[in-house]
Amino acid sequence: MIAEFDKLLDEKFGIKFKDESLLDEAFTQASYVNEHPGKDLKFYERIEFLGDAVYELVVSDYIFKRYPKLPQGRLTRLRAAMVNERSFSSFARECHFDKYIRLGKGEEKAQARERDSLLCDIFESFIGAVYLDQGMKPVVKFCHQVIFPKLDEGWFDEFFDHKTELQELAQQNGPVEIEYHLLDENGPDNDRRFKVSVTIDDKEEGIGEGNSKKNAEQVAAKKALKQYLN
Amino acid sequence: MIAEFDKLLDEKFGIKFKDESLLDEAFTQASYVNEHPGKDLKFYERIEFLGDAVYELVVSDYIFKRYPKLPQGRLTRLRAAMVNERSFSSFARECHFDKYIRLGKGEEKAQARERDSLLCDIFESFIGAVYLDQGMKPVVKFCHQVIFPKLDEGWFDEFFDHKTELQELAQQNGPVEIEYHLLDENGPDNDRRFKVSVTIDDKEEGIGEGNSKKNAEQVAAKKALKQYLN
Repeated sequence: MIAEFDKLLDEKFGIKFKDESLLDEAFTQASYVNEHPGKDLKFYERIEFLGDAVYELVVSDYIFKRYPKLPQGRLTRLRAAMVNERSFSSFARECHFDKYIRLGKGEEKAQARERDSLLCDIFESFIGAVYLDQGMKPVVKFCHQVIFPKLDEGWFDEFFDHKTELQELAQQNGPVEIEYHLLDENGPDNDRRFKVSVTIDDKEEGIGEGNSKKNAEQVAAKKALKQYLN
Repeated sequence: MIAEFDKLLDEKFGIKFKDESLLDEAFTQASYVNEHPGKDLKFYERIEFLGDAVYELVVSDYIFKRYPKLPQGRLTRLRAAMVNERSFSSFARECHFDKYIRLGKGEEKAQARERDSLLCDIFESFIGAVYLDQGMKPVVKFCHQVIFPKLDEGWFDEFFDHKTELQELAQQNGPVEIEYHLLDENGPDNDRRFKVSVTIDDKEEGIGEGNSKKNAEQVAAKKALKQYLN
């Protein structure tokens, strides 16, 4: 692999490959292999197959332990949000993986390097290569650096309906009354702001603001959810 | 958990739980928890969520390394065959897991204990519990005892079309000619036997027998596949 990329992986993530050929394989598309016959090159697909399962376990383990009260249904939805093509391609770009993919000329011309589906594959094959070279631990460390902080940043929030979640979680030990109250509404017509509180059995559990009542309710519900998630 | 089950796990699989409550959780259905309120019991669903990902990685890792020439598509199909409700429920029965599930009275009456879908869940939650208690290694060991030998026994064969596989694999480095030849046909009408050979570019690569020409061809193709799988 290119020395520049080795340096990036080492400096940014503390990852140094013992077997560089795994990294090569993980970043090589079939189109490149086809253009270099006789060199016995391998392309990323097999490693991607493995990386997919490695990443899924690392994410599952993390959210299982981080949210000890979260029921299976919500764990499954959260995992699906984190194991998602759009997420993967963003992560790959953030890590500058797009620059180092080896493509055939036709694919290069067709701008495959910018294609979400390819970046998604490469993200998974990178995970697979790290796992094959060094086992589970550096993969977990990488995810703690790149992926898991995004949970707190709300990165996966758009996949959730917090009001529905709150209802499910608050009622898991019996019925409760969840109500949303408009506390305030102000600002000009083209920039209206709403402030909403949510109460569970008349106890205030969260306050949210937003540019619509609906959005403010979602924010309030998300805050109220916290007590069930830790 | 019941002492008898602890003994079975130890004697049959060499597994001794440090934290017995994980095993309890893995074998308890929600219906049992509902019938014992106030005991703060947990049911298996969360652990099953984790076990699912653990098992998928163990299987992926094994077939990736065992079949270094197998392309991604076939790895994916093989994994799907091994991560399959019908397989899981058979494994669970074989390990006598069905006897030790804790069910509510209604579910017991409804014979949930014999339901494939429940046995499938319990198999996964068992894997999850072993992983949580002792990490990856004993899960891998368990799979080497219970699951992986079934690959050689042809357990997952019915999920494959060997003729299609052979075509895909034999042609991955360019076109070849695959032909099936009827070598022999004998026996009475109600117990006819067929013998077929398969050639790749006129070289015989496998011979198969069966009660129909089609089945004999599948067996021949499976034999010819071996050279690509190791």
